[in-house]
Amino acid sequence: MREAVAGGASIIVLPELIAPGYMFRDRDELMAAAEPSDGPTAHDWCRLATEHQVMIIGGMAERAGDVVYNSALMVDEAGVRAVYRKAHLWNHEKTVGFHAGSEQPPVIDTPFGRIGMMICYDLEFPEWVRLVALDGADLLCAPANWPQYPRPDGERPGEVVRVQADAAVNRMFVAVADRTGLERGQDWVGGSVIVDPDGYPVTRLALGGPAVLTADLDLSKARNKSISEENDVLADRRPTLYSRIAQ
Amino acid sequence: MREAVAGGASIIVLPELIAPGYMFRDRDELMAAAEPSDGPTAHDWCRLATEHQVMIIGGMAERAGDVVYNSALMVDEAGVRAVYRKAHLWNHEKTVGFHAGSEQPPVIDTPFGRIGMMICYDLEFPEWVRLVALDGADLLCAPANWPQYPRPDGERPGEVVRVQADAAVNRMFVAVADRTGLERGQDWVGGSVIVDPDGYPVTRLALGGPAVLTADLDLSKARNKSISEENDVLADRRPTLYSRIAQ
Repeated sequence: MREAVAGGASIIVLPELIAPGYMFRDRDELMAAAEPSDGPTAHDWCRLATEHQVMIIGGMAERAGDVVYNSALMVDEAGVRAVYRKAHLWNHEKTVGFHAGSEQPPVIDTPFGRIGMMICYDLEFPEWVRLVALDGADLLCAPANWPQYPRPDGERPGEVVRVQADAAVNRMFVAVADRTGLERGQDWVGGSVIVDPDGYPVTRLALGGPAVLTADLDLSKARNKSISEENDVLADRRPTLYSRIAQ
Repeated sequence: MREAVAGGASIIVLPELIAPGYMFRDRDELMAAAEPSDGPTAHDWCRLATEHQVMIIGGMAERAGDVVYNSALMVDEAGVRAVYRKAHLWNHEKTVGFHAGSEQPPVIDTPFGRIGMMICYDLEFPEWVRLVALDGADLLCAPANWPQYPRPDGERPGEVVRVQADAAVNRMFVAVADRTGLERGQDWVGGSVIVDPDGYPVTRLALGGPAVLTADLDLSKARNKSISEENDVLADRRPTLYSRIAQ
């Protein structure tokens, strides 16, 4: 975070479950690592946000009573601005003890623009991403932990490709912070990426090792949904024809 | 089509409005080029389908009374199996006289597998693509005319990227036939592509000139929506949370 601040960052995105790690052995280990949304992680990030006048979005294991969510916090100097609980759980998150959230992804009006938030596998559901766009997000920030899978030579990781599509079909910016390194035998894509409303990355791709990607984004560009004289990616939708999507 | 047949094709996909061309000057020209869905183009394709025992999916301007649709036909030796009318119109299609279709994209059970159909800009609406997947399509065939836009050096055309995402988030095959060459000053991506359920192209990309892409697809792979021990891309959806998508 200090490196990002030194690079001029105003909005900092961190990976999913950055605070406790991802590869929990069992529910006991998860419960021990979980904390309330106003716990030590929130306090640390709020202190850093205040010290550097930045916004921080990152993942943590959120304990709420007996339940644990895979959550993301949006924190600034005023404190925790939003909490989001991952709605689409990945693999052993389902069996190790995470509960799936059932609240819509938040879109928060900030001094930097309107910022949405979701987590990793949520990005693979275009319906979920669309909700954030319909709520007016200029920038979708997504903590992620993308497990490494084989892919054909010369191909960009599919997760990055799908984020490019998420950005383009909604004409909004998307910033994903991914995990890197080996954790208890699990390798990660390390595919952090910042994509513009045209769907193209605006920085190099971070593939592999640790990386701090910094980009200067004119978030107002995401307010213009026009892609031709007669087309607007949101106005062109035919929502009454999509009813089976929600059944 | 004869070249595709010689290459072993069973299912042939042709570009959008392959029969009449795309760049209509005005409504009169469009009306003159339009024909019924059982007109000369259907007859020609049915004859070829019968001669070569193939299925043909391609675009035509469909006249229905006083109305013209940007349509695709699915034709085999039995005749026209399905007609689809483009629901999301691109740019001057709206002003030159095309009507937007309001029927769901068809998914047809064929001897080759379950085949869905939509047209070009429809592919940019993940809701529309999802409907085809929910109806069980193994392969989505899409005639397209992708206008050429500038893109950053080294980047794949965004339209191709979005088709990769369409395929992966639904775990189905997608085959797009795009237009090539200059037509009345309009240049085209020429981005025909066949993508597998992992979201990666299974042939070289046709970028630029005319191309016949042929691939041997095991369509049964699209019946397996599993992507981890605990995940299934369709079962993991949370449709009751998506209701605002259809409003």
